Amino acid sequence: MQKEIPYKIFLTEEELPKTWHNVRASMKELPEPFINPVTRKPCGAEDLKPVFCDELIAQELNTTDKYIPIPQGIQDFYKMFRPSPLVRAYNLEKKLDTPAKIYYKFEGQNTSGSHKLNSAAAQVYYAKQQGLTSLTTETGAGQWGTALAMACAFYGLDLKVYMVKVSAEQKPHRKAVIETYGGKVIPSPSNTTEAGRKILEENPGTGGSLGCAISEAMETAVKTPNCRYVLGSVLNHVLLHQTIIGQETKAALEKYGIEPDMIIGCAGGGSNLGGLISPFMSDRLEGKNNIHFIAVEPASCPTLTRGRYALDYGDTGRMTPLMRMYTLGCGFMPSANHAGGLRYHGMSPIISKLYHDGYIEARSVEQTKVFEAAILFARTEGTLPAPESSHAIRIAIDEALKCKETGEAKTIVFGLSGTGYFDMTAYQSYLDGTMTDYIPTDEELEKSFASLIDPEAR
Amino acid sequence: MQKEIPYKIFLTEEELPKTWHNVRASMKELPEPFINPVTRKPCGAEDLKPVFCDELIAQELNTTDKYIPIPQGIQDFYKMFRPSPLVRAYNLEKKLDTPAKIYYKFEGQNTSGSHKLNSAAAQVYYAKQQGLTSLTTETGAGQWGTALAMACAFYGLDLKVYMVKVSAEQKPHRKAVIETYGGKVIPSPSNTTEAGRKILEENPGTGGSLGCAISEAMETAVKTPNCRYVLGSVLNHVLLHQTIIGQETKAALEKYGIEPDMIIGCAGGGSNLGGLISPFMSDRLEGKNNIHFIAVEPASCPTLTRGRYALDYGDTGRMTPLMRMYTLGCGFMPSANHAGGLRYHGMSPIISKLYHDGYIEARSVEQTKVFEAAILFARTEGTLPAPESSHAIRIAIDEALKCKETGEAKTIVFGLSGTGYFDMTAYQSYLDGTMTDYIPTDEELEKSFASLIDPEAR
Repeated sequence: MQKEIPYKIFLTEEELPKTWHNVRASMKELPEPFINPVTRKPCGAEDLKPVFCDELIAQELNTTDKYIPIPQGIQDFYKMFRPSPLVRAYNLEKKLDTPAKIYYKFEGQNTSGSHKLNSAAAQVYYAKQQGLTSLTTETGAGQWGTALAMACAFYGLDLKVYMVKVSAEQKPHRKAVIETYGGKVIPSPSNTTEAGRKILEENPGTGGSLGCAISEAMETAVKTPNCRYVLGSVLNHVLLHQTIIGQETKAALEKYGIEPDMIIGCAGGGSNLGGLISPFMSDRLEGKNNIHFIAVEPASCPTLTRGRYALDYGDTGRMTPLMRMYTLGCGFMPSANHAGGLRYHGMSPIISKLYHDGYIEARSVEQTKVFEAAILFARTEGTLPAPESSHAIRIAIDEALKCKETGEAKTIVFGLSGTGYFDMTAYQSYLDGTMTDYIPTDEELEKSFASLIDPEAR
Repeated sequence: MQKEIPYKIFLTEEELPKTWHNVRASMKELPEPFINPVTRKPCGAEDLKPVFCDELIAQELNTTDKYIPIPQGIQDFYKMFRPSPLVRAYNLEKKLDTPAKIYYKFEGQNTSGSHKLNSAAAQVYYAKQQGLTSLTTETGAGQWGTALAMACAFYGLDLKVYMVKVSAEQKPHRKAVIETYGGKVIPSPSNTTEAGRKILEENPGTGGSLGCAISEAMETAVKTPNCRYVLGSVLNHVLLHQTIIGQETKAALEKYGIEPDMIIGCAGGGSNLGGLISPFMSDRLEGKNNIHFIAVEPASCPTLTRGRYALDYGDTGRMTPLMRMYTLGCGFMPSANHAGGLRYHGMSPIISKLYHDGYIEARSVEQTKVFEAAILFARTEGTLPAPESSHAIRIAIDEALKCKETGEAKTIVFGLSGTGYFDMTAYQSYLDGTMTDYIPTDEELEKSFASLIDPEAR
């Protein structure tokens, strides 16, 4: 008999995972290694050392260890804001009048407002261990920048954050939060780097993109002594740190004997989705479940649903190694969609590979539909969701409504990756009826694909 | 032997309190009843009916029942965001290098960002039960307005929020949040009421005050069919609902055998402080503990530390019954201190009486000192605190530093009533060095006291 399920399932501090989960150890076919754009040979640790911390490189390249220990110094940080609750959306179910059972793993109950803090804590800890004194990064919606500033304040490192200009303008208060934690914010593209100056010359009015900001942060890291660059998504080690989400979710579900039929997450760079699904995906790959995994992305930046599976740079400035991933082309300039965290041209190579091999379904949704779902969720479940997370809410609601039609009592789990406190400009535009949807045309995408290393890749 | 104490103590859903705690049932001397300003006789339920919901009036006047059941419909709402964690501030202790043990009860983990949702849920539930269709209220910092909008969205009532103009200007995004939950925001003073028009004529440039906003909301409630007014602090029934905080705190402490030496809370209208301390105060009044209770208020609005214990109106428009309370005079116009939630001329009659009888110490602090503590707290404990709550942090830190000098390992509990996401303008002004302190002069206070019913009261 199933135990009565509370609104919120919390693990105890003792039940917190002590390891991260490396899904690559369960994959029959691995994602391709990163490629050095000059030599066209696979990157080794030496290629990455000027940019990244040593321990993070080791994690990046580790494809064999399924469980990677979380050092005590990071566990102690995690205890300040973890475990996060797995919430049963009783009120949403009632409002939708659906037989479906809906759960969400809520990562927004920390000051950064999102899951980003999981990787920020780890990355800054390792930088400190290595004796570094400063870090650079980029931020889109601002959640990663805030998370990193929190971690830098905690472990005692300096931080420069290149913030996508359009996000900086939409969210002036994010800058103040980052500065409260001692970080320095530079709107990107800026004239503080060669990469920034070049982009500004070519596109004087641009609102920037994650790709641009990455180029600027990397350049500054390479040129500053005792400094490295850290990234909030896409890379394998970031996805690895985020598996704390999926492992807590799995432990919480198992505590109550709950078996999910589908798991839904929003996908920008892929670390939130990857972190949520990794332990379940490993089981799936080992034949232990048949869960339906769904990645949700904005129709305005449809990386998985309309992109190419190609070798591409991670940044607009073409400084990173080449990665085989779903991409719209590193020159793709997404429209000013309000889900800033999902405006990235590429996708985690791990997620890309799993999607390419048919283990994940991808769907794209328009932002007005996303905000409609966000407001319904806010009014029934209380919590004000981030626009990014609301992409997952939209599909969870759609699936729950399908269950209403078919009468199926499916168990739906989705990731509520963050809160929308700093997205009120977007909410206001939806409420005022001035929000519009944008879908790139095939011509626009073709033009962007043309700049790929191998434009014929599929 | 004491169990090892986790960073966060959570109660289970079953351990959630099923009753509120009425401290008046333990008081040897009760606060004076409310006085009808016309007849000068104590108010009965009939006097209050045009303005307040029936059940809330019953709670307001109930001085005998120590435990008041929480209806299931409210418990279900509470389960969406409660229990709140009692956090051990291990990192703050380490940073201060103090032998003191510091705990805080964190009420900010819901979308309203504060404890206000505890009473909002209860008040809207009872309004719905009574068949009302709309409510009016005032809000200062915006947390009460948000909380009430959330509860109105959940239970299905319309809502008009009169928001103190200076707060509305400092926090434009609060309006968007309230509207996301379906509430209507009117900056106060407004020309939608007689009270507002009168205040605007007399003080054309005023930034408003809670007192003004209360007058406007009450006037609208009385003039609208099937509508009542609800208040977020000061009154006995509000303080009663907030005792969920103190009861959870007490249960969490007892679960680990922890005995507090002092309990610290910020005091605006007094409901947060009263809710936190009530169950401990009852024990104190019954000789079961000797806890040191400290109320912290802004030096710019020093109700307890420099006010009079006098009969006064709760609002600037002199529409409410008279209450015996600590007050700066209902005509007092506080400066634009950033802790909007503490800018009230009066103080809960229960807190006032307990303070008058020597059971509570009061301290006032200047806002730059408050923000200094807020930033230290944010950087060590992660959470970005509300300016209001940071008053309690300031004194908790001061007390922990005293312990460092004396070597005493005191157990300090304080209320972290909310988060500061919507207070970034204030944080930015502190970081920029443009924040100033304001302390009213004796002459200013004397002038304000002159308008009291009995200016000689002490």
